[in-house]
Amino acid sequence: MPRCLITLTTDFGTTDHFTGVMKGVILGINSTATIVDITHGVKPQEIAEGAFVIAQTYRYFPRKTIHVVVVDPGVGTSRRPILVEAAGQYFIGPDNGVFSMVFAEEKHRVRVITDERYFHHPVSRTFHGRDIFAPVAGHLGKGVTPARFGRLITDHLRANFEKPVRTGKRVWTGAILKIDHFGNLITNFHVREFPDLATRPFELGAGLVKIRRLALNYSECEPGELAVIVGSSGYLEVAANQASAARKLGCGTGAPVELTLY
Amino acid sequence: MPRCLITLTTDFGTTDHFTGVMKGVILGINSTATIVDITHGVKPQEIAEGAFVIAQTYRYFPRKTIHVVVVDPGVGTSRRPILVEAAGQYFIGPDNGVFSMVFAEEKHRVRVITDERYFHHPVSRTFHGRDIFAPVAGHLGKGVTPARFGRLITDHLRANFEKPVRTGKRVWTGAILKIDHFGNLITNFHVREFPDLATRPFELGAGLVKIRRLALNYSECEPGELAVIVGSSGYLEVAANQASAARKLGCGTGAPVELTLY
Amino acid sequence: MPRCLITLTTDFGTTDHFTGVMKGVILGINSTATIVDITHGVKPQEIAEGAFVIAQTYRYFPRKTIHVVVVDPGVGTSRRPILVEAAGQYFIGPDNGVFSMVFAEEKHRVRVITDERYFHHPVSRTFHGRDIFAPVAGHLGKGVTPARFGRLITDHLRANFEKPVRTGKRVWTGAILKIDHFGNLITNFHVREFPDLATRPFELGAGLVKIRRLALNYSECEPGELAVIVGSSGYLEVAANQASAARKLGCGTGAPVELTLY
Repeated sequence: MPRCLITLTTDFGTTDHFTGVMKGVILGINSTATIVDITHGVKPQEIAEGAFVIAQTYRYFPRKTIHVVVVDPGVGTSRRPILVEAAGQYFIGPDNGVFSMVFAEEKHRVRVITDERYFHHPVSRTFHGRDIFAPVAGHLGKGVTPARFGRLITDHLRANFEKPVRTGKRVWTGAILKIDHFGNLITNFHVREFPDLATRPFELGAGLVKIRRLALNYSECEPGELAVIVGSSGYLEVAANQASAARKLGCGTGAPVELTLY
Repeated sequence: MPRCLITLTTDFGTTDHFTGVMKGVILGINSTATIVDITHGVKPQEIAEGAFVIAQTYRYFPRKTIHVVVVDPGVGTSRRPILVEAAGQYFIGPDNGVFSMVFAEEKHRVRVITDERYFHHPVSRTFHGRDIFAPVAGHLGKGVTPARFGRLITDHLRANFEKPVRTGKRVWTGAILKIDHFGNLITNFHVREFPDLATRPFELGAGLVKIRRLALNYSECEPGELAVIVGSSGYLEVAANQASAARKLGCGTGAPVELTLY
Repeated sequence: MPRCLITLTTDFGTTDHFTGVMKGVILGINSTATIVDITHGVKPQEIAEGAFVIAQTYRYFPRKTIHVVVVDPGVGTSRRPILVEAAGQYFIGPDNGVFSMVFAEEKHRVRVITDERYFHHPVSRTFHGRDIFAPVAGHLGKGVTPARFGRLITDHLRANFEKPVRTGKRVWTGAILKIDHFGNLITNFHVREFPDLATRPFELGAGLVKIRRLALNYSECEPGELAVIVGSSGYLEVAANQASAARKLGCGTGAPVELTLY
């Protein structure tokens, strides 16, 4: 029998019992599941950041992997739990846009999760990671077919935080999707939409700084020098060799970035 | 053969080699064990916080799970290592009160761990996670019976940090058990002991603030508004929608909380 | 078939998608691998700290374990990827000195990894953890023999950060290898090179402080008192009971430490 792989991506941090409880619930239902932590360090309640993280990660996992994503400021309200089939894998989480970047990349089918037989009872109003998302993942991994959890829907939320907007003849305004651990600013400009960047003068404005240099890797620059890099996900990043670009620029997630091509 | 599940809960943080070493010791003894991190982010040497975390988590794991808990300011002194059987599961750690909230909930048998054949030698004075707790968990998971590790005792430490005290006709004084990753203050008032809270006026005082509102979920309140919530563990929490209640109140773990029922 | 164990040690932190991506790549190649996180909290780009962490950890793991270590400020430059065989285990990472403390302890054979059939394509210039180190580990764990990845070399980098230097008749100058989660300063003085420390007066200078006390464990001292301890790895540590020695001394990784024996 193939192994059941379940990944976890949350904003729960790693200092509480929350992720341990989710793992226990999964293993209590499905003791042979293999649980893989993607990250529990999504900025609290930052749906766009959660959307970015899972979209950068799922493609590397084998078919049938089940990805549980819990970034869920609306827990306990009427926002729906959903089960997504895309790219031969499964995605379980709240219907709040957190799978938008998967929807943008892949054909997908979305179900609203309604069958309470697969929930952990009583269902709390504050911890659906434990009461809905983890147990549904456990049962799905054990072989319950997706259709059993609920009916197909087409009105699931698709947010648009991932796309820059053209704001001038040669100007695009985008945003910072995430600041990584090294302080690199990951923008929403993807190199496949700006393929001539390497051969054409450009200017990327972030905070009060304008950057005109494209570097191939971090150590090509002087220590502390800012440059634009095509990051490992294909998005343009603002990076500083051996230093935090985020600290130099004073920018945070969601801050605007302006690209001018000459 | 059923899978051997071993969980780890420590105050070791995640930036050192300590937890990796414990995993290596377990896998060196028992290469088919599955190791699950609960958290390594218990506040350093905060036994009460470790007690809360494991008590909130164990019940979700399957029978026979082995929980290793290392929050151990007295490592290297005469405090004893113990092996607890409770709720069909096993608990391994120091006899310093860290299992008090399991003892309060479950019938239990406690053994002092004395058989040095199951230790990693030489036994250091500062890292019993590596030298005693991890190897004992590895051997227990491999089928060594509990009685082999040492004799039953009844004078194990039971701390009482989990209970509020009645301090007036309508007043109870409790404490903050833990501040979670979102800044919610988890108190030691459990809803099963105050079941009429939803239907009766009350006041919860924490820091300089008094809160009279009971909310059903985080997003029911205005952004930043403080409210009392029945948390997912059944304990009353002070929470602020999309904000850190801990920062608003300036309270830390152990701070007193006063509940008045009218 | 024995289980394939792959450990991860990086400076990627735990808030990004990077480690999740590496896990996906490994499991995509080798879906039965068991992945164990050692730490992702090596200080960014601190090769010496990564060298210390893996050297303290590998010996506890079973034979055939594959250790992937990615602390790689030179990613994308001409620094080579290497595969090391030592102590019956495997080590995969950049040729930048991060395995120096393994080389100092164990007989070893080193190969430069060149066969691109085992890489993830296209190979980026900034994320060899995903494109080279993880897939090579996945293939190695699946049974590809080491020789297939590339030829033996002998000019791999051996850094010397692990050794104190004699700087006077009775004086040695060393350095702080790592500050642990509790604020203990782990020095590069190993007790096997200074075996008479327990029986002889000494003075250890770090920052502006000189310490003359050797304690057996943390709680032997008064709360807050500084003492030297023989840590669980055999290195001398400066520790403070229930407090952070690092904060008291204001010292960081790499800071000099002076030992005088009388």
